Amino acid sequence: MTEYLASWNVGPAKSAILGFVETSTAKGPGFVDVADRIATFDNDGTMWVEQPAPPQADFLVRVWAKALKDDPSLGTRQPWKAIIEHDEAFFQGLATQDPEVVASIEGAVATTWAGTTPDVFDAQVREWVQTVKQPKFDVGYTSLVYQPMLEVFDLLKANDFRVFLCSGGGRDFMRVFVEETMGLYKEAVIGSSSAYEYKDGKIVRTDQMLGGLSLGSGKPEHIYAQTGRLPVFAGGNADVDIEMLETARFSLLLVHDDDEREFAYTASAEKAVAKAKQLGWTLVSMKDDWSTIFAH
Amino acid sequence: MTEYLASWNVGPAKSAILGFVETSTAKGPGFVDVADRIATFDNDGTMWVEQPAPPQADFLVRVWAKALKDDPSLGTRQPWKAIIEHDEAFFQGLATQDPEVVASIEGAVATTWAGTTPDVFDAQVREWVQTVKQPKFDVGYTSLVYQPMLEVFDLLKANDFRVFLCSGGGRDFMRVFVEETMGLYKEAVIGSSSAYEYKDGKIVRTDQMLGGLSLGSGKPEHIYAQTGRLPVFAGGNADVDIEMLETARFSLLLVHDDDEREFAYTASAEKAVAKAKQLGWTLVSMKDDWSTIFAH
Repeated sequence: MTEYLASWNVGPAKSAILGFVETSTAKGPGFVDVADRIATFDNDGTMWVEQPAPPQADFLVRVWAKALKDDPSLGTRQPWKAIIEHDEAFFQGLATQDPEVVASIEGAVATTWAGTTPDVFDAQVREWVQTVKQPKFDVGYTSLVYQPMLEVFDLLKANDFRVFLCSGGGRDFMRVFVEETMGLYKEAVIGSSSAYEYKDGKIVRTDQMLGGLSLGSGKPEHIYAQTGRLPVFAGGNADVDIEMLETARFSLLLVHDDDEREFAYTASAEKAVAKAKQLGWTLVSMKDDWSTIFAH
Repeated sequence: MTEYLASWNVGPAKSAILGFVETSTAKGPGFVDVADRIATFDNDGTMWVEQPAPPQADFLVRVWAKALKDDPSLGTRQPWKAIIEHDEAFFQGLATQDPEVVASIEGAVATTWAGTTPDVFDAQVREWVQTVKQPKFDVGYTSLVYQPMLEVFDLLKANDFRVFLCSGGGRDFMRVFVEETMGLYKEAVIGSSSAYEYKDGKIVRTDQMLGGLSLGSGKPEHIYAQTGRLPVFAGGNADVDIEMLETARFSLLLVHDDDEREFAYTASAEKAVAKAKQLGWTLVSMKDDWSTIFAH
């Protein structure tokens, strides 16, 4: 397996990943049936940059700022009010799952695209992918996918694992560009989901969600719904990934400790790091374990 | 492609299937991108025998008959009342989507397993698979999967289509045994779905559904939710498959006209046959097009 994980430095994390995959595919006590080989990965901060804000938040804020220009009366309500007032604390309430913030953003997402066909949303996301640049790196967000994580996908796929992305954010947002950026089909994306109806020969978005938010206990719930299983291998980076990581046999927790090449932060990941140490999850140091950060 | 569809007689149906797959995979005007190659198939009556009743109805009636022995007071309500009274017309209301029947059966399914972990349901389904025999053929229902349809799966998979089962019945029912009987992973099963919650480290079934019934317009809705696409190739046999078949580029409608080797019936498929003729779908005659019926 020496041809895999080329961007991983020799060290305990690389050894643990290779060791687990070898054990789970070789005859012996650690063998995992091919059918059970499900691997799930959180998205923001696990597969790509989530600072200074999750990419989808950047997308939504731009869509809503534009809507405000067309209809200033929106500005009396959240989340449009927070956009006008540059209220960053409000949007950070999404990461900490402040119920008021989550509800207002869910509500705004619901009304923004209700009654439209998927091509409307898809076109807006594609335009965002092609034009918006992440402030620190001055490139599009999809150029900031972690190369070492894609190499974990390659290793797992080569060993008959089926790899799924389990985003806390919107399933449909990631499905627009996941095929070209992460090499996964749309059906491999799990996440918080809008409900759709089939009407007059067309798929149309409703103002409802299908299931709850894919955060915390919502992650295993969405994974079980999509796959009929819980993961054998899981990767995450934050407290909202704990439940998913708990369900897996091998759990990887990415630590953002490389302020030079990416970002260094521990906010919203303190409990996950404590759990990792307690339960023996594999901690991955971006700084020490990765020789390359980005895929493009 | 002559090695595929071995159980299909030479004729227009076989030619149409092979022709479509050839056209969609060869460079030219009919080419379908690999990413878009989604194929979806109805389950009951398309993949296996659905007479005298859909297999899952047989399973449910047995579970509920047993529950009645433990708690006779259930017998005052539907669907338990219909079981005591051998009221077959009641259960046929499921195929015709009688709202009262559908609601009472949904409600009974919900309460029967609410609060249990999936292994409880799975064990009951496995016992049913191993012990119950279909009355006409005197073998288990999973021995009554159509060999020619599995050969269509093989043909499609060999041409980079991803094949999904889209059952009108329960997703989780089919997921228990789909891997050994139809060669699809659990995640390839779409259908009417119970909602689950993750509680105290376990997946537990709730008394709610996740989305609506996977019948009629519910089929494209569930397919879009699971895959992010609508099918290129679809197969069905009944009126409740019309919407799914309408969304596909190639649509196959199986006609049950072989009373000797299987069953001959047109009930609940009249509109689908009319649509097939109107829209040029490929009609498959079990009697004329299939040299073998069952896989086992």
